[in-house]
Amino acid sequence: MAQIVRFHAFGGPDVLQLDEITLGEPGPGEVRIRVAAFGLNRVEALYRGGGFGPVSFPAKIGYEAAGIIEALGPGVVGWQVGDRVATLYGLAMEQYGTYGEQILYLADMLVPVAAQQSLVDAAASWMMFGTAFALVDIAVVGTGDAVVITAASSSVGIAAIQIANDRGAMPIAITRGRGKAAALLAQGAAHVIVSDEEDVAARIMDITGGAGARIVFDAVGGEPLAALISAMAPQGVAIVYGMLAGYTVDLMLPALMTGNITLRGFSADLLIKQPESRRRLVEYVQSGIERGALRPVIDRQFTIADIAEAHRYLESNQQLGKIVVTTAPVSA
Amino acid sequence: MAQIVRFHAFGGPDVLQLDEITLGEPGPGEVRIRVAAFGLNRVEALYRGGGFGPVSFPAKIGYEAAGIIEALGPGVVGWQVGDRVATLYGLAMEQYGTYGEQILYLADMLVPVAAQQSLVDAAASWMMFGTAFALVDIAVVGTGDAVVITAASSSVGIAAIQIANDRGAMPIAITRGRGKAAALLAQGAAHVIVSDEEDVAARIMDITGGAGARIVFDAVGGEPLAALISAMAPQGVAIVYGMLAGYTVDLMLPALMTGNITLRGFSADLLIKQPESRRRLVEYVQSGIERGALRPVIDRQFTIADIAEAHRYLESNQQLGKIVVTTAPVSA
Repeated sequence: MAQIVRFHAFGGPDVLQLDEITLGEPGPGEVRIRVAAFGLNRVEALYRGGGFGPVSFPAKIGYEAAGIIEALGPGVVGWQVGDRVATLYGLAMEQYGTYGEQILYLADMLVPVAAQQSLVDAAASWMMFGTAFALVDIAVVGTGDAVVITAASSSVGIAAIQIANDRGAMPIAITRGRGKAAALLAQGAAHVIVSDEEDVAARIMDITGGAGARIVFDAVGGEPLAALISAMAPQGVAIVYGMLAGYTVDLMLPALMTGNITLRGFSADLLIKQPESRRRLVEYVQSGIERGALRPVIDRQFTIADIAEAHRYLESNQQLGKIVVTTAPVSA
Repeated sequence: MAQIVRFHAFGGPDVLQLDEITLGEPGPGEVRIRVAAFGLNRVEALYRGGGFGPVSFPAKIGYEAAGIIEALGPGVVGWQVGDRVATLYGLAMEQYGTYGEQILYLADMLVPVAAQQSLVDAAASWMMFGTAFALVDIAVVGTGDAVVITAASSSVGIAAIQIANDRGAMPIAITRGRGKAAALLAQGAAHVIVSDEEDVAARIMDITGGAGARIVFDAVGGEPLAALISAMAPQGVAIVYGMLAGYTVDLMLPALMTGNITLRGFSADLLIKQPESRRRLVEYVQSGIERGALRPVIDRQFTIADIAEAHRYLESNQQLGKIVVTTAPVSA
């Protein structure tokens, strides 16, 4: 028996409940993991609220967790009971949701946890760095690139700051309020723009000496995205992976054409699904963790009993970085 | 003395006039060309009408011409008097406009005309095939790709049809009226969609068996572009190089993100400006002409005395393919 977080109807954080379940033995290609910690992501709040589906109830939830393998299903090779592992995201949450003391997961979708990394940190690493790896794999970020990062205090935003710095680029963090500006500088942002107070496009042009940003990494969409695109360098690449500010953007084509600008939609699981990209992603993130260049930033930890509270906090936008939930059974 | 087409004020086709000018000797890096024919492009009508600037009057005009070198300026190597050449586009028209019996041009911006190609055909080749080469250089068009081509009866549209076929792809031509549909099939389009009569997105999905288009090559922009993007395959690439239907597009970000779609602004001179892309472009277009895979389609020829009439026809949208103007002095 293990406590698994499920919800039986769409709704607010309180629909998340702890169900006592016997998961049983892993099926072909699966392993059972004793979970030490799982990370929360915004998309999971959207899922819980009914933002996408279809979902049949009761529904599991969650994309990332870290723990210890406790059983192997038929045909699983390359893993042993006792291995410390973290999940890669991209499986259907309904079937392979990661919020729980125990989970079943596809063995092919696991990565080993480096010896020097705690399971709590491992549960916070792969979604943030994996998503921000788009800067490397799609935008080919390199030395001197001005990289504009919106929603910069999110875990993915902070991962983007770290990756930009690791590649010798110049991360320009955009945050809505003044409150997180100092913390973002401390996290490695070369510049911070406070969008509630400043003209974002003008500041980007100012910071880049009129050249504009080579890369935009945007979680916001909507009207702010149009302004960002107006402040891009020729042949710049804007990667859009979220739309907190709106589902549409009214694009000015003349600037897009004259500048030979690329606007690229991006869903985080793409790089996991493509074998070559996944290989590069895992290699880069593991190396970055081992080198100390990539360090997950955990804002706050909750225990599994407080899962509703954890989701409420997730949606409060107070955090800087990741929210992680720990389970009782194993020490993290 | 030579007749050069210039305009002394922005306006309609009639502002184009023949000025008798002595061009003089070519400067450093320049050659003087006895022009046999020059090709017309839509962007030149926009320029003539005051669509972009700044321009000081009287202003030359034109991006492409073919003829015979008759004088070399200081420092020019690799060319000889008597060579048959065509111009690459991308120089400022005000200084290096190509409409005239004689022109000065930068030697570095010339390509040799293949022995089997007439100078009239050469004057019609480089803008159309060079622009459509974006399908190869940016979208990496290949076997089986569904390639949607708007403004398909334009010279660039026809070039895109030929390039798609040359690469084993499936060109889907979009044209506004039924009038040009048969001609586009004859030009090599695998399918023709008449946008005034049909639901373009639904037809694309139907033709591709629900898969959507891997590539969109769009000269139209505006609202029709949003519909095209809704009918794209995952990881598809939409290249936008014109905006006949509108300067803005209201993009739906969810589809862009879920599909990992790329929207790429493109200005035709980019591939000429980048040495590696230019090398590939010239090699591919020359090879395509020699192999017979690329054949410029000339709708109608005018003589230089009728330049205003030629521009009127350019703006009438009656043509299928290229409009070329010939000069009196040399045989084409």
